[in-house]
This record gives sequence, structure tokens and C-alpha cells, in this order.
Amino acid sequence: MTALPAVWVDGRRQAAAGPHVSARDRGLTLADGVFETMRVRGGCVFRLDRHLTRLAGALAVLQIPAPSDLRAWVLEAAAGAAGADASLRLTVTRGLGAGGVAPTAGGQPTVIVTVGPLPPSSPAIYEAGLSAHVASGRRNERAMTAGLKTLAYTDAVAALLEATREGADEALLLDTEGHCSEATASNLFVWTGDLLVTPPVSCGALPGITRAAVLELARAFGVPTAERAVGLEELLAAKEALLTSTLRQLAPLVRVASQPIGGGAPGVLTRQLADAYTALVARECRVPRDTP
Amino acid sequence: MTALPAVWVDGRRQAAAGPHVSARDRGLTLADGVFETMRVRGGCVFRLDRHLTRLAGALAVLQIPAPSDLRAWVLEAAAGAAGADASLRLTVTRGLGAGGVAPTAGGQPTVIVTVGPLPPSSPAIYEAGLSAHVASGRRNERAMTAGLKTLAYTDAVAALLEATREGADEALLLDTEGHCSEATASNLFVWTGDLLVTPPVSCGALPGITRAAVLELARAFGVPTAERAVGLEELLAAKEALLTSTLRQLAPLVRVASQPIGGGAPGVLTRQLADAYTALVARECRVPRDTP
Repeated sequence: MTALPAVWVDGRRQAAAGPHVSARDRGLTLADGVFETMRVRGGCVFRLDRHLTRLAGALAVLQIPAPSDLRAWVLEAAAGAAGADASLRLTVTRGLGAGGVAPTAGGQPTVIVTVGPLPPSSPAIYEAGLSAHVASGRRNERAMTAGLKTLAYTDAVAALLEATREGADEALLLDTEGHCSEATASNLFVWTGDLLVTPPVSCGALPGITRAAVLELARAFGVPTAERAVGLEELLAAKEALLTSTLRQLAPLVRVASQPIGGGAPGVLTRQLADAYTALVARECRVPRDTP
Repeated sequence: MTALPAVWVDGRRQAAAGPHVSARDRGLTLADGVFETMRVRGGCVFRLDRHLTRLAGALAVLQIPAPSDLRAWVLEAAAGAAGADASLRLTVTRGLGAGGVAPTAGGQPTVIVTVGPLPPSSPAIYEAGLSAHVASGRRNERAMTAGLKTLAYTDAVAALLEATREGADEALLLDTEGHCSEATASNLFVWTGDLLVTPPVSCGALPGITRAAVLELARAFGVPTAERAVGLEELLAAKEALLTSTLRQLAPLVRVASQPIGGGAPGVLTRQLADAYTALVARECRVPRDTP
């Protein structure tokens, strides 16, 4: 079993303490790269194909050449964590830069894989639910890189710091039109009327892998779903709300801007979806798949 | 004389080839940090105080503890480049992270100083002027980190790549209201009517050090200045336009969205300001200042 955290750069295992990356890597100097965070269970990477497809799409938009060995490198790293549930992060940057915004011609991307323990998570999150502060800044749904999982998470960090100062667990970002977009690293779902609604990419949401799975599960339950704009008033009046992400999975959102949602406690649909999601991960990751 | 490029991490000189930084540094994983790019001339750092003040302001907003030795480390690095005009970059990140958006309590910032040659610059930029494509994506003037020089330059990279595909030298970003904001790493000035106008920080512009110097110089010439919103139509109808940044200094902007500005050639005011700026740098950096 791999000691955690473990680091690979360009497919080669590194000492965990580092250093690992050049100070001139454009991933560091300009956030010029993209990443995926994946969940490893028994050596299996949940929905690896979808993560790799999303990453490839983001690389193409940024004109970063897609390294050919990504799948093999991820599987090698995941195999090392065979005995543990773990978090695996795949980062691809444009590689070394010469200064300035313009990329150097013929540069080689840098590929970083890290495998670490799942972040500390309190069961209270799932039993009591999360609270969210509405961030003072807005998410830009018309950014050049809207919808891509780039390294540029500075705004999310600032929003979460603000939420913490306000005594909330999370920050909810609105888009520039005032619609709900998403939380700092998770998608939003709202059960409103007879629909389970999630904001679309056109409202600045990332097309989350967990989000897609929740849409599938809800449809399988016979719960109608929609991807459409959600105003803050609609969220506050919703029957239930939840946040979805690879690592936190499905977390009830029970309080926004100091106002309770539903009864201010996790609801029935959220619990059903969370149980179904746990079962889905277990089902798809029952057998370690094509590890080297 | 320091061989270029040279790298210091936390005040200690490193081998230029690296690696220098951990793969788990939040500067790399989340663009969780800020930077300044400075111009070194004869060992002197042009307007070092203003750069350090701006950086300290950004660190405070992001709740990153300000390292106490930044000035000494910058001056030590600059002294090594005494014989050459050089570019010096100071980067401060939040340091190591444990995964996830929330910072680890008690983390130590990472301080990186790199000194390298000025980026290749063609005299043609100043003689013929630059062209700019209007980026398809928008700059978010209401972002959590608007006005801060964070590491999140992914949108600027994407905008410059788009401009290059369109055959332009630069990208001009509009804010979400459609006002001119700035170029990918430089501020915009527009000579319109009797005013030299530059977009305010409330339109998503960074409060540039060169921008501030140009405002000073224009006032010294008796040219009235204003910081106010500039629409694209006003830019296209302007007598002159220019882009300002630490490394490119003052560059005429003579074509936007394939339309000429003024006569489509660098104008008189731009040349006067550029000459005055060159003289200003030479004056303030005549004597190497308090290098160790």
C-alpha cells in the first residue's frame, strides 16, 4: 500500500516532501492548467473515463497538448492506494514558461498525480446539514474559461474565507445576473415544486461528475430533473437543497444566508439520493478495474 | 552578476532547473497566492515600495500572513542582476495544503523570487503599435478578488490564445457590463476629447504601478486625466490609445477589433508619455538604492 500522501510527476514517483515542480511552471505562475479530483475505492477510480474526458476538453480549449499516458499514470497511482478509500488529484499544466502571459512554443505539459487520504469530514455534515453564506463577489458565467476546471480557484478560496468569517460552512456563489451558480467546490441541487433542479453551466456551474450521477439517480427514482437558472428566492423557498462533489459526495444544505431551507434539517430526498449514490460507487467500484 | 534565470525560495537561492516547489503548494493547486512583476535596472527595483504595498494589500484580503523578509529577499535577488535590465517576479502563496479549498490552520506561506531577462520585445511594437482582439469572454469586475494581482491568470491566457488565433497581438477584455477593462496583463489608456482616460478598478482593471506613473506624467504635462468607464465605441473613436505594464512599459494600441484607432499609427501623446516614462525610470533608478 502506498504511503499517503504520494506524488508522481510525469509518471515518476517522487519523495512526498518535495520539491516537485519548477517555480517557472505556468501552473504555478499563471494557474495555466486544469485538474480533476477523483475518488479511489479499493484501487478503482470512480468514473475515471468521465474525469479524463472532461480534462481532455479543458486541455483542448486551453490548447495544452494532451499527454498520452494520463490513464496509465492515474491507474498506477490508484493501485498503490488499493486498501484505502482515497482522494486522487490529476493536474496537467502547460509546463515551463519564460515569463509573460504568452505560452512558449513547443512547451511540454507537466503532469502531477497526488494520492492522499479523503479530507477530514464530520458525520455531522450529513446528519445536521451545511450552512452557506452568499458570497459578496460573483461567479463569472461569461469568463473565457467558464465551465472548465482550471487551477484558478482563488475566488473560491476568498469566498470560503468570507463564509468562515460569517460563521457559515460554505459559500454560495451567484452569477453576474444574480442566479445561483454553485458552492466553492460543489454543485447545487434544489428540490422545488416537483423538480430537482441544478443550475446549468450557463450560470457558471461546473459540469460536475457527481452532479451528473445525481441527475441519473433522480431520474431512476422517477424524480423529474431540470438544468435551469435558480434564483436565490427559489432556493430559500425550496423543499430541500444539497451540495454535490467528488469528495464530500452529497451533503444536505439546510441554511442559506441565515435562513432555513425546508425545515432546516436534511430532507428525505437528499437522504435517498445520498444512499443511492453510496450504492452506485460501491457497485461501479466493486471489482478493481484494469489496474496494471 | 547573477546568471539568468535565477530562483530563490523563502530567501534561499535554488538551482535554476529546479524543482523548487511542492506539488501540494496551494499556489499551484488552487492559484492561492499573489505576485508582483518588477523591473530591475542597475540593481534598482523601480517603485519597489508600491509593489510591496500592493502585494501586502492582496495578502491581507486573502488572509495570507505577510512574510517579514520580502523586501530584503527582493533586494538580494535584484543586486545579483546589477549589470542588466531584468524582470523580477515576487510570488507569495499560502503554502502547503492538505487538499480541498479550505486552508490548513497555521500554514506557512511560500515566497518565490525569480529574476530573468526582460521578455523578448520587438521595437516594432513601439514603432508600428499593437493590435487587439476583443475577447469573447468577459472580465468579472465583481469577482471576490477583483483588483488583486492573484495567480489566477487562466482567463488572460485563454484570451491571448484567442487573440493569437484571430491574428491580433493582444486581447482586450470587457467587463460584464461591456466597458473596456484592460488587456491580458496591461492597463488601457484612451485619449478622448481633451482627457486621458483609463478604466477604473470598478471596471475590472488592476491598479497598475505603470498606470499610476502614467497618470502622474500626464498631469505633469498638463493633460487632464480621468479614471472612468470607457465603452468600446469611445475607444474606437479615440485620438490615441496605449497599453501600460511593468515589462512592456508604454505600447501604442493602434488597432482594435480590426479597426484603426486615430490614424492607425502611434500618436504624439503616446510617444511623449513613453519618453517621459523612460526618463522617469532612469531618474528614479539612477543610483542603486539600499541594496544589501
